[in-house]
Amino acid sequence: MIAKEVIQKIRDVVGQAHALDSDLDRFGYSYDASFVPLFPPSLPDLVVRPRTTEEVAAVMKIANEHGIPVTARGAGSGRTGGSIPLQDGISLCLDRMKTIIELDEKNMMITVEAGVRTGDIYNVCAQKGLFYPPDPASFKYSTIGGNIAENAGGMRAVKYGVTHNFVMGLEVVLADGTVINTGGKSIKNVTGYNLTQLMVGSEGTLGIVTKAILRLIPMPKYRNTLLLMFSTLDGACGTIHQMLQSGIVPASAELMDRTCLNAIAKNRKFEFPDTAQACIITEVDGAEEYEIKKQGEQIETIAQANGVVELRVAKTAQEADDLWAIRRALSPAVGALAPDRVSEDISVPRNEFPEIVRRIRKIVDKYNLDFAVYGHAGDGNLHPSILCDMSDPEQAPRVHKAVEEMFAATLELGGTLSGEHGIGITKQHYLKDALGEAGVVVLKSIKKALDPKGILNPGKMWLEEETVHD
Amino acid sequence: MIAKEVIQKIRDVVGQAHALDSDLDRFGYSYDASFVPLFPPSLPDLVVRPRTTEEVAAVMKIANEHGIPVTARGAGSGRTGGSIPLQDGISLCLDRMKTIIELDEKNMMITVEAGVRTGDIYNVCAQKGLFYPPDPASFKYSTIGGNIAENAGGMRAVKYGVTHNFVMGLEVVLADGTVINTGGKSIKNVTGYNLTQLMVGSEGTLGIVTKAILRLIPMPKYRNTLLLMFSTLDGACGTIHQMLQSGIVPASAELMDRTCLNAIAKNRKFEFPDTAQACIITEVDGAEEYEIKKQGEQIETIAQANGVVELRVAKTAQEADDLWAIRRALSPAVGALAPDRVSEDISVPRNEFPEIVRRIRKIVDKYNLDFAVYGHAGDGNLHPSILCDMSDPEQAPRVHKAVEEMFAATLELGGTLSGEHGIGITKQHYLKDALGEAGVVVLKSIKKALDPKGILNPGKMWLEEETVHD
Repeated sequence: MIAKEVIQKIRDVVGQAHALDSDLDRFGYSYDASFVPLFPPSLPDLVVRPRTTEEVAAVMKIANEHGIPVTARGAGSGRTGGSIPLQDGISLCLDRMKTIIELDEKNMMITVEAGVRTGDIYNVCAQKGLFYPPDPASFKYSTIGGNIAENAGGMRAVKYGVTHNFVMGLEVVLADGTVINTGGKSIKNVTGYNLTQLMVGSEGTLGIVTKAILRLIPMPKYRNTLLLMFSTLDGACGTIHQMLQSGIVPASAELMDRTCLNAIAKNRKFEFPDTAQACIITEVDGAEEYEIKKQGEQIETIAQANGVVELRVAKTAQEADDLWAIRRALSPAVGALAPDRVSEDISVPRNEFPEIVRRIRKIVDKYNLDFAVYGHAGDGNLHPSILCDMSDPEQAPRVHKAVEEMFAATLELGGTLSGEHGIGITKQHYLKDALGEAGVVVLKSIKKALDPKGILNPGKMWLEEETVHD
Repeated sequence: MIAKEVIQKIRDVVGQAHALDSDLDRFGYSYDASFVPLFPPSLPDLVVRPRTTEEVAAVMKIANEHGIPVTARGAGSGRTGGSIPLQDGISLCLDRMKTIIELDEKNMMITVEAGVRTGDIYNVCAQKGLFYPPDPASFKYSTIGGNIAENAGGMRAVKYGVTHNFVMGLEVVLADGTVINTGGKSIKNVTGYNLTQLMVGSEGTLGIVTKAILRLIPMPKYRNTLLLMFSTLDGACGTIHQMLQSGIVPASAELMDRTCLNAIAKNRKFEFPDTAQACIITEVDGAEEYEIKKQGEQIETIAQANGVVELRVAKTAQEADDLWAIRRALSPAVGALAPDRVSEDISVPRNEFPEIVRRIRKIVDKYNLDFAVYGHAGDGNLHPSILCDMSDPEQAPRVHKAVEEMFAATLELGGTLSGEHGIGITKQHYLKDALGEAGVVVLKSIKKALDPKGILNPGKMWLEEETVHD
């Protein structure tokens, strides 16, 4: 509980209308898009919606003085519980900070406030022939601040990289309300430690990002979008693998298994051959039309050798969008297949993609579970979903065991727990397995240095019981 | 001074032959390639040359127990005094750790020990058609560990990026001897804070990098190298600026002024027109021959509009190498022009490159100093060199004032103190101007968290008198 006079101090900063404490408002900020159970809810004591960096700084100063936990929030579209206020306190929602401050066409950079929607950044840049590539599934509604906090990925990572590859500089409010600026518009910059990249992906535990300078690239002129159906999952994996080995760098290369295809077909008109066991949607883009045409033909040749049973090439921009709409419809369609979906976000060295798919299949078969697998096969980032009913006391332990073995297999192949969703609540039990005890100790000591009172998004990323060295 | 029994403990770890304490050996490890005066020398008490990570860990454990400063060193080719042991103690030279552990062609990554020469990495990869782009001027003899510690840049940054863009994972020995592994071969990886990028560019103050996993790209098949002479420096700057604005992304675009041309001509056969006041050497590369030819023609057209007085296009690989040899001969040639050279490494937003060149010229004119200017104009990273005699008590204060104003102008244009050489000793007085007091406090608190006793490369990056918050 936050004392009344402290709430009043915060209201004096942001205005009465932007510090909410009704039960309904508090409930509205108690969950995100992860599979963390809604009940019992993690209610914040107060929802604060600042408009400026100065307001964020003033609120943090008050929170730090009174030891009040602060959990930053954008659109609440995170997948691992990053914006859930686990220890009550303040839900600091940055959605009112949505000014696009500057589009610097000459340096090809854009400066935005944290609450700007990623899709809006994409659109504003596209109008000037510039391209902001990171496209997490949520990009139409997620905020750039949230994307930065979680280091969001997306389908274009295989060619263009993820959020962190595009962040040049940040304005950050620290736990005690101090405002710092990191990085800047200089392409080369080695002045001091790389605080920019320390903040990206730190899940709101080290500071509140209020502004960002993002790098842009010229918008590719041409794209060539293909959908390929395969008679085996191995054939689909093999095709992507051979594409990459032959030097084709697709803008994206997405894989779906038969369960995914069935799920989509339940919700929309979508026909596919009975023999199809897996599907790839892939796109090449570039500055030269003949080049992407040539690459499309190379992909066809590789697919023929891997048992392709159907191939569709988009002839117009509309047809390309229609193919991608299939992929974008996937996640909710798979989610609707069972009462619960336990979905992971593992990432392996690109070369191990076919092997991790084989191993996961073995694991779920062993525990007799239904599952769907899809993911960004081009960059080794996979979203296997166990379709289950976690309220079934017989089934739940099998699911937990399967997940544990999935993570173990991933780490064994040199992979990692999370490719693009973060650790948050849902993966914190496994952090030590991935980083080792010494690695976790380092994270904690950095956290303690920047947030000595531990008020920023407490309870996330690692388990609290682990010892902290001093 | 290190106690005799402690030296013996260290000798027990690395062997008698690899823990040196003769006056001559100590002197040999007291300087680097910076303009930090040689006398009085910063002698280490002991030079330690470990062979394995285990040895590094054991030495750090001993050093931490006894509070002995440890300054890591590769080839000693740094430009800002990073490897100079300012507070005596141990010079920890990693030059014996030179195993290339694995070239993973399928994932296009190479794993190396810290002491491997960057040029050797380039060569080993090139033999397999793979490309490690970062090419600091020292790349033939500098070690990858040093490149990582300083986040070395080079001529190819404009297209390909600098060292940090290629580091996927590290093995790091912390101050207390703990070994951690950061990152890995997964392209997408958001598990925990980005310790990899925190370590890159930390100048040996946070940990000792012992191994690195580096990302590679396919070697471009074709290149087109051009040398262009201009009647004005503004014309040369304008050409690079317009090239970039028109969408041409050169692999490198190097600028030299008339003083540089004269300097080179003193040392080697190199003719240029009397009217030439500036020179650009630039290269475009790519997978398609016609494409780089087209880009070469576009560059010619832009240069014509900017007062080009001579243009040479390399017709063979040998001719291309010859053109680059001119650029590579530059730094020592300029250094020989005066008793001292005070050389900077400022970096500005790409668009401000012509403006910073104009401002620097005004500043040195105001203080009546000789200077040469060259640099990586394509990425906004400039090396202005004041040619002077610092033993002249009348001249030295003018030089200091000019440098101060140069930094102020750089920061005013949104630039930064160092693009690729680091802060080290030579720029530590100006760090607060660049990062603000709050920024420096953050660096120090991270340093304190990871190295509580302050034994790793003490006295570098910031000035000690500044207060540390706790």
